[in-house]
Amino acid sequence: MLDGVENDRIRHVGLRERVTSAEEAAALIEDGMTVGMSGFTRAGEAKAVPMALAARARQHPLKITLMTGASLGNDLDKTLAEAHVLARRIPFQSDPALRKAINRGEVMFIDQHLSETVEMLRTRQLPRVDVAVVEAVAITENGGIVPTTSVGNSASFAILAEKVIVEINLNQPAELEGLHDIYIPTYRPNRMPIPVVTPESRVGLPFIPIPPEKIAAIVVTEKLDSSATILDPDADTRAIAGHLTEFLLHEVRAGRLDHTLQPLQAGIGTIANAVLHGFIDTPFHDLKMYSEVLQDSTFDLFDAGKLRFASGSSITLSAQKYQQVLPRLVEYKPRLILRPQEISNHPEVVRRLGLICINTALEFDIYGNVNSTHVAGTQMMNGIGGSGDFARNAYLSVFVTKSVAKHGAVSSVVPMVSHVDHTEHDVDILVTEVGLADLRGLAPRERAATIIANCVHPDYRPMLRDYYDRACQRGGHTPHVLEEALSWHVRLAETGRMI
Amino acid sequence: MLDGVENDRIRHVGLRERVTSAEEAAALIEDGMTVGMSGFTRAGEAKAVPMALAARARQHPLKITLMTGASLGNDLDKTLAEAHVLARRIPFQSDPALRKAINRGEVMFIDQHLSETVEMLRTRQLPRVDVAVVEAVAITENGGIVPTTSVGNSASFAILAEKVIVEINLNQPAELEGLHDIYIPTYRPNRMPIPVVTPESRVGLPFIPIPPEKIAAIVVTEKLDSSATILDPDADTRAIAGHLTEFLLHEVRAGRLDHTLQPLQAGIGTIANAVLHGFIDTPFHDLKMYSEVLQDSTFDLFDAGKLRFASGSSITLSAQKYQQVLPRLVEYKPRLILRPQEISNHPEVVRRLGLICINTALEFDIYGNVNSTHVAGTQMMNGIGGSGDFARNAYLSVFVTKSVAKHGAVSSVVPMVSHVDHTEHDVDILVTEVGLADLRGLAPRERAATIIANCVHPDYRPMLRDYYDRACQRGGHTPHVLEEALSWHVRLAETGRMI
Ligand SMILES: CC(C)(COP(=O)(O)OP(=O)(O)OC[C@H]1O[C@@H](n2cnc3c(N)ncnc32)[C@H](O)[C@@H]1OP(=O)(O)O)[C@@H](O)C(=O)NCCC(=O)NCCS
Ligand SMILES: CC(C)(COP(=O)(O)OP(=O)(O)OC[C@H]1O[C@@H](n2cnc3c(N)ncnc32)[C@H](O)[C@@H]1OP(=O)(O)O)[C@@H](O)C(=O)NCCC(=O)NCCS
Repeated sequence: MLDGVENDRIRHVGLRERVTSAEEAAALIEDGMTVGMSGFTRAGEAKAVPMALAARARQHPLKITLMTGASLGNDLDKTLAEAHVLARRIPFQSDPALRKAINRGEVMFIDQHLSETVEMLRTRQLPRVDVAVVEAVAITENGGIVPTTSVGNSASFAILAEKVIVEINLNQPAELEGLHDIYIPTYRPNRMPIPVVTPESRVGLPFIPIPPEKIAAIVVTEKLDSSATILDPDADTRAIAGHLTEFLLHEVRAGRLDHTLQPLQAGIGTIANAVLHGFIDTPFHDLKMYSEVLQDSTFDLFDAGKLRFASGSSITLSAQKYQQVLPRLVEYKPRLILRPQEISNHPEVVRRLGLICINTALEFDIYGNVNSTHVAGTQMMNGIGGSGDFARNAYLSVFVTKSVAKHGAVSSVVPMVSHVDHTEHDVDILVTEVGLADLRGLAPRERAATIIANCVHPDYRPMLRDYYDRACQRGGHTPHVLEEALSWHVRLAETGRMI
Repeated sequence: MLDGVENDRIRHVGLRERVTSAEEAAALIEDGMTVGMSGFTRAGEAKAVPMALAARARQHPLKITLMTGASLGNDLDKTLAEAHVLARRIPFQSDPALRKAINRGEVMFIDQHLSETVEMLRTRQLPRVDVAVVEAVAITENGGIVPTTSVGNSASFAILAEKVIVEINLNQPAELEGLHDIYIPTYRPNRMPIPVVTPESRVGLPFIPIPPEKIAAIVVTEKLDSSATILDPDADTRAIAGHLTEFLLHEVRAGRLDHTLQPLQAGIGTIANAVLHGFIDTPFHDLKMYSEVLQDSTFDLFDAGKLRFASGSSITLSAQKYQQVLPRLVEYKPRLILRPQEISNHPEVVRRLGLICINTALEFDIYGNVNSTHVAGTQMMNGIGGSGDFARNAYLSVFVTKSVAKHGAVSSVVPMVSHVDHTEHDVDILVTEVGLADLRGLAPRERAATIIANCVHPDYRPMLRDYYDRACQRGGHTPHVLEEALSWHVRLAETGRMI
């Protein structure tokens, strides 16, 4: 039944008889179950089984709790949402159709710090995973699962689930094997320190170790990962990168950093990618990344000879970059590790390594509180993702955003954010294309003065200064005119513009 | 010059000649300097030198940046604020007079996660400490400083400062020696895991190791620590303790915990102390604490045979408890450790040990966001303290508060908090005297339903339900009526009542 290629990929002989169709595998998933699927920022998600599940649900309605690493590609979240399969979705998503269902209150979305989901599963503070569905390049002789372009939460899902479905993707390169470092923290009360002490530390296994008898079905697939949706750098993102570079050079001159900086983390999205890309034209060298998603910019930095090593939980590339990188995977491999998101994002490791963390804000306020998730305080965009894991524990926590959105109708700097994801305590540096605010060691009133002077779009600066001046007349450690604090958002809702 | 007792306390012979008056020692502190002083929640602060400094400043004005562990006793912050000595104050305070000066914008207060201050100092992201002033029970043969009733940030202040002033307090019992465990994380990029793997782990030295020549002056003092200001349990705090106990027993029945629970952290203040005290009358046993401040309740639990071990950064007791505990210190000593606040609060250790963390909210909102610091979003109460270090990394993050304040004029549960210290992601359980909301694994709309049903005072419940119903009509993942979200606080400011 299986050809040679498939035999190479399923090296545990006894498991070969478990190969079946996506439909039959999906039949293991029943109404009401909790399902843990691979997939992290459009990389390495299980592709066939969820589609088969959606197809079945269109005939015979069913609902599940779906947990993943992070967002899924191949319109999976859209397809599942439109087939009304998702009762609950944990811990991240970034799909426009699912987002709408969440904001209508149809899908219960549990937005979590990405390092925490499996911690809660392991302590049974979230419902047990009934079935795990994990994309793999191979199953080892002993039944170990070798993930593809992401690790995400796959290892813990497979370890904790009652049954495991493996999707062997023949189009994910076999050379991915050896890239992964699967380490699971030991159980309390005997938990030992996580032995990762540099981005390069290899501390685990190159596969997910589970008893082979748990593998209930194997599906052979060929569909590729979706490409990243990030846009090319533009004038604004180049300006943001420029301000940040200038600041970091200042830190080097002040003797706080050298030109190798500290290990870098960069968040998802267009702006963070552009900022990282901007490091190509800087005197920084021998850089390292300890991040979550490795985007195009990681490989641009490798190719420019700027980057020594990159650790992440997934590789998510544009179509063009994918064509360049995948054939040369063996070249990059000695300088890459993919880890479980619990480890890539772990507070213990982030704090130990002392990362420079660059994440994107939707909006921030005059005191430096950041909203990364909720448009107008209510409409979920994607989720907090790993931004909190990193920002809280960073050596230097940077948030970037353009100073205005929606062609100037929206100011990204507001009197009070309409939702708080990161409090002022977790935000050291704010950057827009206008400029950079260094908030370290400043009290709220000083933060406000710095932010208003440096980050706000000129169209909004007088209004913001006026707000702040009137707030100061009322006094307080963190002055506000409470009845006006959210008025910019209210005006936006009423008139379509903040100004 | 020195008598026998003082010679016992200053065992490094060469340093005995540095003994001087508080006034002369204080003369080492100059206008514009950054000074790091011992003291953590009214325990173990330097007592004589800051008073002498304030006295001098009343004649010859001067301003400093004052860093401590946390709050100071003996009206030191009041005295320094009233003498206008404080230009900047870092990272915590709880003094009514200083609070007023901060809220008037006269003192720049940098409110920080208590584990982070020395991390920023060490990386020179805060101004260098010119002079450290540390209360000690003794100086060892080699010039090591043995702290008194708190460690706080004293070790790093002394290590990083240019000059160190030691206050030898003859009335702090010599038996405190041996209680402390001074461990400082190694420097990046070679930072190793912090080896604390249980509350009992001893991983450092019993004194602060510094070169003796840095000790520029020694002052002999006799003043006692101030007593704690916590109130006795009342009907409401007993009800809160009751709800939490009932919940934890439910967790035991569900097999997620056993009767020894997980190590406990309890925040400052009356309510947290009362909750912990409430554990005396429960079937829980062989408990351990890995906390910040050890209050009366810690020793009540020891005496009741409930507690096996307690690790903290300070011991802060009521006058009565102080009289009982201090004479019996040698009995308690084998079951106590005092650590630097960087370690007692370290994300790495908190997450590893899996703590049950109980902290106090001023107010929380229908989605479970918590405000611990800012009355009406603007007026600083004390500071975030260690609550974020613990809540973010807890096994179980509990926040407690009474459902109303100011005799019912204020609801502690509001549509939207006026300031966010802890986002919904970091809050698992909310408890008021009305009841308990278990928010684990719930989406915002589910959190709102649970909180409104369980935690809100009956006088405010209909209003809050009405707000939430109207918010849901507008939709969103986290529904709000934005123009009304802060209206309860605005009404309070205008009318003195929220209702
Ligand atoms: C914040 C975040 C949405 C920005 O994404 P991005 O692709 O870099 O940024 P963009 O500027 O393209 O903004 C994305 C959208 O938000 C809109 N937007 C930006 N600022 C806005 C604001 N203040 N108000 C309303 N909408 C705003 C943009 O207009 C754009 O809308 P569109 O998709 O309709 O064009 C994204 O980084 C995110 O989800 N972050 C949270 C998770 C995270 O930080 N993870 C990091 C660890 S991996
Ligand atoms: C939140 C905190 C102030 C509560 O302290 P507490 O002593 O347990 O609580 P109390 O109920 O006595 O409240 C203290 C004051 O706040 C007032 N208060 C409480 N809730 C309020 C609200 N929602 N709005 C306005 N005032 C409120 C009380 O009326 C009381 O005022 P008073 O001093 O004038 O009587 C205190 O726990 C704190 O500072 N926490 C932040 C730091 C922290 O959590 N550290 C923990 C790690 S150690």
